[in-house]
Amino acid sequence: MTDFKRTRSFFQMPNGVIYLDGNSLGPLPIAAKQRVAKTLVDEWGEQLIRGWNTAGWMAKPSLIGDRIGRLIGAPNGSVVMGDTLSIKVYQALASALELNPRRRVILSDNGNFPTDLYMAEGLIRSLDRGYVLKVVAPEEVESAIDETIAALLLTEVDYRTGRLHDMQALTRKAHAVGALTVWDLAHSAGAIPVDVTAAKADFAIGCTYKYLNGGPGAPAFIYVAPKHAETVRPALSGWLGHEAPFAFDLEYRAGRGIERMCVGTPPIIALAALDAALDVWEGVNMSDVRNASIALGDLFIRELEARCPELTLASPRDGTKRGSQVSFRHANGYPIMQALIARGLIGDFRAPDAIRFGLTPLYVDASDIHAAVDVIEDVVIHRRWDAAQYRTKANVT
Amino acid sequence: MTDFKRTRSFFQMPNGVIYLDGNSLGPLPIAAKQRVAKTLVDEWGEQLIRGWNTAGWMAKPSLIGDRIGRLIGAPNGSVVMGDTLSIKVYQALASALELNPRRRVILSDNGNFPTDLYMAEGLIRSLDRGYVLKVVAPEEVESAIDETIAALLLTEVDYRTGRLHDMQALTRKAHAVGALTVWDLAHSAGAIPVDVTAAKADFAIGCTYKYLNGGPGAPAFIYVAPKHAETVRPALSGWLGHEAPFAFDLEYRAGRGIERMCVGTPPIIALAALDAALDVWEGVNMSDVRNASIALGDLFIRELEARCPELTLASPRDGTKRGSQVSFRHANGYPIMQALIARGLIGDFRAPDAIRFGLTPLYVDASDIHAAVDVIEDVVIHRRWDAAQYRTKANVT
Repeated sequence: MTDFKRTRSFFQMPNGVIYLDGNSLGPLPIAAKQRVAKTLVDEWGEQLIRGWNTAGWMAKPSLIGDRIGRLIGAPNGSVVMGDTLSIKVYQALASALELNPRRRVILSDNGNFPTDLYMAEGLIRSLDRGYVLKVVAPEEVESAIDETIAALLLTEVDYRTGRLHDMQALTRKAHAVGALTVWDLAHSAGAIPVDVTAAKADFAIGCTYKYLNGGPGAPAFIYVAPKHAETVRPALSGWLGHEAPFAFDLEYRAGRGIERMCVGTPPIIALAALDAALDVWEGVNMSDVRNASIALGDLFIRELEARCPELTLASPRDGTKRGSQVSFRHANGYPIMQALIARGLIGDFRAPDAIRFGLTPLYVDASDIHAAVDVIEDVVIHRRWDAAQYRTKANVT
Repeated sequence: MTDFKRTRSFFQMPNGVIYLDGNSLGPLPIAAKQRVAKTLVDEWGEQLIRGWNTAGWMAKPSLIGDRIGRLIGAPNGSVVMGDTLSIKVYQALASALELNPRRRVILSDNGNFPTDLYMAEGLIRSLDRGYVLKVVAPEEVESAIDETIAALLLTEVDYRTGRLHDMQALTRKAHAVGALTVWDLAHSAGAIPVDVTAAKADFAIGCTYKYLNGGPGAPAFIYVAPKHAETVRPALSGWLGHEAPFAFDLEYRAGRGIERMCVGTPPIIALAALDAALDVWEGVNMSDVRNASIALGDLFIRELEARCPELTLASPRDGTKRGSQVSFRHANGYPIMQALIARGLIGDFRAPDAIRFGLTPLYVDASDIHAAVDVIEDVVIHRRWDAAQYRTKANVT
């Protein structure tokens, strides 16, 4: 049984804060401070350029990729770190389209995180050969999968509501009609059990600053199914994805397997913080995390609906159909969230009207939920918000 | 007059090391340690998601871009940070091709850093509409600029030899025949005076881990000439380049000016290290740096040629035609460099036969050059290398 008191002790948590926004940015793992300082002073400072070999920097994107792989059911050597999720969307989608050259439709849904759609738009525009991005409602995805689809581009957990797609079933249907799948695991990795191998996903991508606690702007990951890894030709063919980067050949030759998805020089300092954050997962059982997360969500929904009837649940009521967050709708969602934050309860707002709360058992427990509900009730029932006072910029996802 | 004793005191320099590899990875600015710790503990740790506003994270890519801009002659609001140099090559080149839609030739040279050529190859392959990457010898670039060229893609300073291209003259010739220019400043920014405005460069890109001392894998920069900034449509159209990222619109609308060259969530921890590194440049005059660098190079060449006649100069003898590095050729260049590194003189090797030394006045002075020449003489004249003993992986550029 996972000891969540122990995992909670690994994080810095400010006094007076109830943090229900780990679905946007996970908190600081205390060990990251020392790890990053060591990377700066002992590695960069003392080893200088030699650090690429002597401190093992060059291997970090693959080694950390393997650590992420263990959390998403990917075998060693099938995940690599680097860049941002947006860049990884581009790489994965460009590869999927190239593997399926006779089709011209990319299927996504309007619950996908916007950058996935934006990157697809940019790719389509660059390719300029008749590709179409078809965006349907989440519940229409399954019926829209047909023989015209080149690639399915979906985020497993809806960033607004937490609604879960059935990755395995949708991938099966996609494959049955000859389509490939690109799964964005931004709100899945570290949040719910994921098994890209069992689901037979072709590509998967994700960020590491949410449930994986890698820090603001932490590097992204990309998974390529082993059966495709030696076949895909990278659109973003950078020197670190070359078969022999230090031969300095004038012509690109794709590196072995997943390594070809590396692009530029790896972000060593950011990777050090992420590496420390992943230590938290040692000894953590993902099904314990899932059970605890569902229990927290059920408790939160039950208490909030009982005490704040004017809030409307925006997330699936069935915990097994929900990621690790709960959202409610309210016409004054924006000022309400600003008032909550001013009171030390940190969640976030997603346009047009959703207040969103991440439930992360590694450092959030039932006492936090009870405390959070008390604050929300006070703010909502007594209308302790003031649209003018709290009109500031929205937070980052 | 720049006080180089003062700037040298800003860096951590290991005992027993003569560091002539700042053209690969600049040393640790001591202040970076504190700055990064503050970003971790006070910002990420205490402010959590609020840091995007309260710690000013969201503005960092532009603010730090402006700081780089001051070193390369770019006005405020024309440079932005993010990703890697490889990604920035792709963005700049894709934009240049789109601005020049009737032409199909990209002109580069075989002294360009390989990743520039690789990214161009990947882009061409994706576009799949007849683009050609024409790679000539550096001295043939000028005569190869003609009415067929859509974009010139060049690195100003050759990474192997330090040979300088005349950015202003080549840009003028390119513009005269209707071609656009993409200048890679990886070995220029912080090394030599650069003025992208005076040179009328259309795009410029660079990394920040060499002469700008931003740390291993530090974020890259991109400059777009103000006259193009509102016209280019980004190929990599990520949410942070959207006009209103937090509106979460389903359709991409390019952000204002240079902001559209942002892609994913900015790497805040890496940017903190870079920001501290840029403080070193306050009070530094780039023409002082240039004069000191040429003097160090002239001294190094003079001494080494006098004492090691079997080394062949690979860099321009005329300091005004050379970047901030000096390279020599030797058939046993690789084991020689390994022997030098084992003796504490850190330079690097570039295939097939070049030993390369970066001369960086911010923290290298004439006494280092004299000490370095002593070591090189001893190793080369007494043949103190052993190919078997030193056969390890090459260092990273």
